Amino acid sequence: MSDIVRADGRSVSDLRPVTIERGWSKQAEGSALVSFGDTKVLCTASFTGGVPRWLTGKGKGWVTAEYAMLPRATNSRNDRESVKGRIGGRTHEISRLIGRALRAVVDTKALGENTVVIDCDVLQADGGTRTAAITGAYVALAQAIEWGREKRLVPAKADVLLDSVAAVSVGIIDGEPMLDLAYVEDVRAETDMNVVVTGRGLFVEVQGTAEGAPFDKRELDALLDLGVDGCSRLRELQLAALA
Amino acid sequence: MSDIVRADGRSVSDLRPVTIERGWSKQAEGSALVSFGDTKVLCTASFTGGVPRWLTGKGKGWVTAEYAMLPRATNSRNDRESVKGRIGGRTHEISRLIGRALRAVVDTKALGENTVVIDCDVLQADGGTRTAAITGAYVALAQAIEWGREKRLVPAKADVLLDSVAAVSVGIIDGEPMLDLAYVEDVRAETDMNVVVTGRGLFVEVQGTAEGAPFDKRELDALLDLGVDGCSRLRELQLAALA
Amino acid sequence: MSDIVRADGRSVSDLRPVTIERGWSKQAEGSALVSFGDTKVLCTASFTGGVPRWLTGKGKGWVTAEYAMLPRATNSRNDRESVKGRIGGRTHEISRLIGRALRAVVDTKALGENTVVIDCDVLQADGGTRTAAITGAYVALAQAIEWGREKRLVPAKADVLLDSVAAVSVGIIDGEPMLDLAYVEDVRAETDMNVVVTGRGLFVEVQGTAEGAPFDKRELDALLDLGVDGCSRLRELQLAALA
Amino acid sequence: MSDIVRADGRSVSDLRPVTIERGWSKQAEGSALVSFGDTKVLCTASFTGGVPRWLTGKGKGWVTAEYAMLPRATNSRNDRESVKGRIGGRTHEISRLIGRALRAVVDTKALGENTVVIDCDVLQADGGTRTAAITGAYVALAQAIEWGREKRLVPAKADVLLDSVAAVSVGIIDGEPMLDLAYVEDVRAETDMNVVVTGRGLFVEVQGTAEGAPFDKRELDALLDLGVDGCSRLRELQLAALA
Amino acid sequence: MSDIVRADGRSVSDLRPVTIERGWSKQAEGSALVSFGDTKVLCTASFTGGVPRWLTGKGKGWVTAEYAMLPRATNSRNDRESVKGRIGGRTHEISRLIGRALRAVVDTKALGENTVVIDCDVLQADGGTRTAAITGAYVALAQAIEWGREKRLVPAKADVLLDSVAAVSVGIIDGEPMLDLAYVEDVRAETDMNVVVTGRGLFVEVQGTAEGAPFDKRELDALLDLGVDGCSRLRELQLAALA
Amino acid sequence: MSDIVRADGRSVSDLRPVTIERGWSKQAEGSALVSFGDTKVLCTASFTGGVPRWLTGKGKGWVTAEYAMLPRATNSRNDRESVKGRIGGRTHEISRLIGRALRAVVDTKALGENTVVIDCDVLQADGGTRTAAITGAYVALAQAIEWGREKRLVPAKADVLLDSVAAVSVGIIDGEPMLDLAYVEDVRAETDMNVVVTGRGLFVEVQGTAEGAPFDKRELDALLDLGVDGCSRLRELQLAALA
Repeated sequence: MSDIVRADGRSVSDLRPVTIERGWSKQAEGSALVSFGDTKVLCTASFTGGVPRWLTGKGKGWVTAEYAMLPRATNSRNDRESVKGRIGGRTHEISRLIGRALRAVVDTKALGENTVVIDCDVLQADGGTRTAAITGAYVALAQAIEWGREKRLVPAKADVLLDSVAAVSVGIIDGEPMLDLAYVEDVRAETDMNVVVTGRGLFVEVQGTAEGAPFDKRELDALLDLGVDGCSRLRELQLAALA
Repeated sequence: MSDIVRADGRSVSDLRPVTIERGWSKQAEGSALVSFGDTKVLCTASFTGGVPRWLTGKGKGWVTAEYAMLPRATNSRNDRESVKGRIGGRTHEISRLIGRALRAVVDTKALGENTVVIDCDVLQADGGTRTAAITGAYVALAQAIEWGREKRLVPAKADVLLDSVAAVSVGIIDGEPMLDLAYVEDVRAETDMNVVVTGRGLFVEVQGTAEGAPFDKRELDALLDLGVDGCSRLRELQLAALA
Repeated sequence: MSDIVRADGRSVSDLRPVTIERGWSKQAEGSALVSFGDTKVLCTASFTGGVPRWLTGKGKGWVTAEYAMLPRATNSRNDRESVKGRIGGRTHEISRLIGRALRAVVDTKALGENTVVIDCDVLQADGGTRTAAITGAYVALAQAIEWGREKRLVPAKADVLLDSVAAVSVGIIDGEPMLDLAYVEDVRAETDMNVVVTGRGLFVEVQGTAEGAPFDKRELDALLDLGVDGCSRLRELQLAALA
Repeated sequence: MSDIVRADGRSVSDLRPVTIERGWSKQAEGSALVSFGDTKVLCTASFTGGVPRWLTGKGKGWVTAEYAMLPRATNSRNDRESVKGRIGGRTHEISRLIGRALRAVVDTKALGENTVVIDCDVLQADGGTRTAAITGAYVALAQAIEWGREKRLVPAKADVLLDSVAAVSVGIIDGEPMLDLAYVEDVRAETDMNVVVTGRGLFVEVQGTAEGAPFDKRELDALLDLGVDGCSRLRELQLAALA
Repeated sequence: MSDIVRADGRSVSDLRPVTIERGWSKQAEGSALVSFGDTKVLCTASFTGGVPRWLTGKGKGWVTAEYAMLPRATNSRNDRESVKGRIGGRTHEISRLIGRALRAVVDTKALGENTVVIDCDVLQADGGTRTAAITGAYVALAQAIEWGREKRLVPAKADVLLDSVAAVSVGIIDGEPMLDLAYVEDVRAETDMNVVVTGRGLFVEVQGTAEGAPFDKRELDALLDLGVDGCSRLRELQLAALA
Repeated sequence: MSDIVRADGRSVSDLRPVTIERGWSKQAEGSALVSFGDTKVLCTASFTGGVPRWLTGKGKGWVTAEYAMLPRATNSRNDRESVKGRIGGRTHEISRLIGRALRAVVDTKALGENTVVIDCDVLQADGGTRTAAITGAYVALAQAIEWGREKRLVPAKADVLLDSVAAVSVGIIDGEPMLDLAYVEDVRAETDMNVVVTGRGLFVEVQGTAEGAPFDKRELDALLDLGVDGCSRLRELQLAALA
């Protein structure tokens, strides 16, 4: 590991300060306000009986997610997608990613014919919004499932959550692999990768993109190692928030 | 005034606990996180040079607002307007109301050819979201104009803000006029009114609606008195937040 | 009252010439072509059995309204909302206002599980289109309910209409309160108010907006008096049209 | 010709009573309220300087049309296209037909770089709305061009209109060709045809469709003869309305 | 007939080289890749049990069509309609035409409560895309109905197809009637007509439009003769493709 | 490597039969009809002078892509996105992936202020449509750039393409890593990965998703090896198509 010091004083393998405030919202069955440095995402989990029509009668539940950003979460204001009348490609893509990440650790049979919708709304964006969203969404989901158990909508002994799941970004800047990129780092990264890792250290999703030059296997391995390590630290914070 | 005690312990002429956190957002030129009890609205003000095309070259600025609600701000989840692909009538109506309320206290000539867009996003809803939004939006707007002055985009001596502006809901429940209705009160109100009042105590907007039986002039007067009084207390809190 | 003479020769408390032609449309269960001076609105009422899904089985009916303007109702042509693919905020807001005004005088239990949709299409616009629409919509609604009674879809003895309802605009121009503003007056008004009043003289809706300087209680009272008086004259014309 | 008597007392070659009220709208540069029996269409022509971007600088003008129907123009109410957020295929198709019909008699060079938009809004529909629209649209267009001449936006001597244009429906019912079908006839027609014919008796558009059994050349010829004859009578009424 | 030689060497009454490749798609119940010269259209027929809700229980089937063009089927690229979020008028109009043409030769009672949707996607466009689409769609439809018969979804003895149907364009260029216009001819045509003709030589649809000068009866007759003749040759090719 | 034989007779490390037909479309500046087994994608490249507004004056070109599927490319028919009025998340995501993959091998400075839009339309889908699309899109792009060079829109000596790029899917089925999954394999895969690799063997994009159980580093490595190897064989076919 290099002894480079980053703009905000971190080493290449440091996470930004991470906080996870479980139960921030009074109305939702589960919720978490998560921050990765200045990135703040409000995750709420809505638990409802029943499943979408295409799943009805199969004895399985459904977990899905929607991601969005407030218009002034970023440095300059973006038009609202509701005003534009259509959801952008990036929004769609991230919503789908979060949904897949959560479903990877859910036993939908154990959940029963119930639906949990996770909304991840970025209140402030400074890089890594999708990874913060996944990390917070897991906490909101766990709280909502606990709520379902208390309400006896989910059997008491059902192991709905097979594992935990967290995510972090990694990237190569000036040839150096780094963990959890802030926005100013993200725009400079030659390679940008998001890894979604379970509590047991297995991969759920690996998405690496060459923004500048293509990358080789050695660089890929270094990024994966950093990402797995970051996720294991996020897992500790998730457990603490749920304790 | 009656000595009725309301569900949350307030008298008929009490506001809920109100907090206004100026500068909540790091990225916006102005911002305020405002709460009226459990109603929480994040207001951000985006200051940009230039004006919409239809105003160009008239030597005037422009102030406008957009209101929206997170899907799980309420007790049960609502579909996102971005997903539905269209903005609902209620959203439009409130956005227009907030914009008019702010423009009533702005000297657009003094603002110069600059635009301020105020986004009011309801993070949690418990009645009175539009009045909380106006009250917080004024604080965000004032901070953004101050920012414009510091950046010398607005002349140092220009009195852009002619007055302050705040808003509160009033309503008649079981025949009794009450101030600042929480959601459980709002749904039971026979008459529902929103008043927007300047710091000098003048009306900017009066919107009264008979939800149940039509109302008479005496009831209207009682509601207006309560509303004017509530707004004068909100003005104190606005000044404190801006101090 | 002032002895000012307005551009069209009216005194400050005069309505424009008002006509209400009941049954203009052959196809609708109720209809009225209403004119307030050069403002012409075609109101049709469609009576159908059944109610929207969210009301089913509650033993109540439903009354709603949609407002729209032909593209060349105004001095210069506006793009059609169907072509733009979305309904503007103003259209939504007025549709909602008309619906609320009508529901305030309807006993939905007495209506039974039936729905009346009122369409108010502005054929020519010269100020006061929403108030003309409400005034005409009441006549169309009354005719449609009578139709329902004849068809025995509504019980013969049911008092579906609890009262009549009419609306008029009032405003302050050069410091002078005036009734029923034509377009050239409307654009000059410092304060603009719409009042919706029942036949018994009670308020259903009061919407006052400071377009220029904020207004005080004395001005508000003067406007309300003018409005109530105008609505009582409109009531006479409604009764005559329904006779 | 057969001596069949139709439901409304007409012979097979009779038009319904046709009226054309030129200048119905005060605001538009040209307008006509046209009725073919109970079908009523309000046609307005909006004359503006300039042309769409793709025509700029070519020394030619542009004429286009938009057709629409009020929601309760028909026997049962249809949802508004503005509410549905999209224009239906039938609406598009008729708008395009009207535009082509009008452009066929316009010398766009003589019109100069000006645009005329014709709006045809069906207030009441009883069959033949598109043919009534074309017939009325020509009158509105002619009035608008005259207006342009008076305002010296069009050269005094320019022959902008090369000919007049009118349209009528024809169809085969129970094997019998008939002119100007009312709605009850239209739904029973085996073959349905719209013909658009100039004042000189030439075809601009021929659209024949087998709704039931396919048709042969002899039937086609009979329909065309009836249509040409009907259009020559409509031409007289157009000239009278413009006199 | 004139002895003019056209740009591609054809006489005025020649079709372009026409090929019909039945079963091009492996997945659809019926399909045909049809080419009229450089115009290439992929037609697929999707056979499904059941009918749209408005037809349910009437013992009849339904046949409908959708037409579309790939963005770079033409000489310069057009934006996708999916990206624009709305279907253009031309697309709608052609989809409706194809559907009507096919339904004219289908006995929907014999089809039973089944639906066939024909998709006609233009892969390359060089004039006459709608007529090629109709001609290929018939082949795809016939194959799909045969499939339904084999699967015993359609009774073995039912005569679902009452006749065949084909279509071709005709037009007048420099005063000369010509068959099957290529794009370079189409843009120069004074009159443009599409005729849809059954195997027995009867008309299903006749759509003639004066693009330049209006046309007279003699010209119309010449065009119809050319079109009927062209369709009878297309019928031979359809039969061969289905053999 | 295992000696498992797959349903279509391939070994685990075999590609399906791949064909790339360069110049399939006559109208586009570049095109390729690519097939991976029964998956068929038509890729067209549209070369136009100029760049989007946000890039103007920066001396750089732009390459972007749009992916879509014909409604009956799949086993059962899907509604058209143009009819639904919105583009689905999957479509957006794949369009973005293709665009990024191509831009990774383009020197936009060398391209000059020109834009190439690649349309990838799936005519028939049997798994791996996005990887076939990328592989074919590169060929269409290369042909379009060659076209630009011939037209002297791109400098003769400019090395616009820094490398080639191809893509292939890999996945784990019953614990066994396999190359280039057909649809029946894809739905059974526990882990699904797409790799985008340059001609020099470097990664442009790695997207691995656990559809069933999460995966470990050893499995990831096995998949990457298979994918890199498959892409090097695709490169040979691309070179042959461009020769």
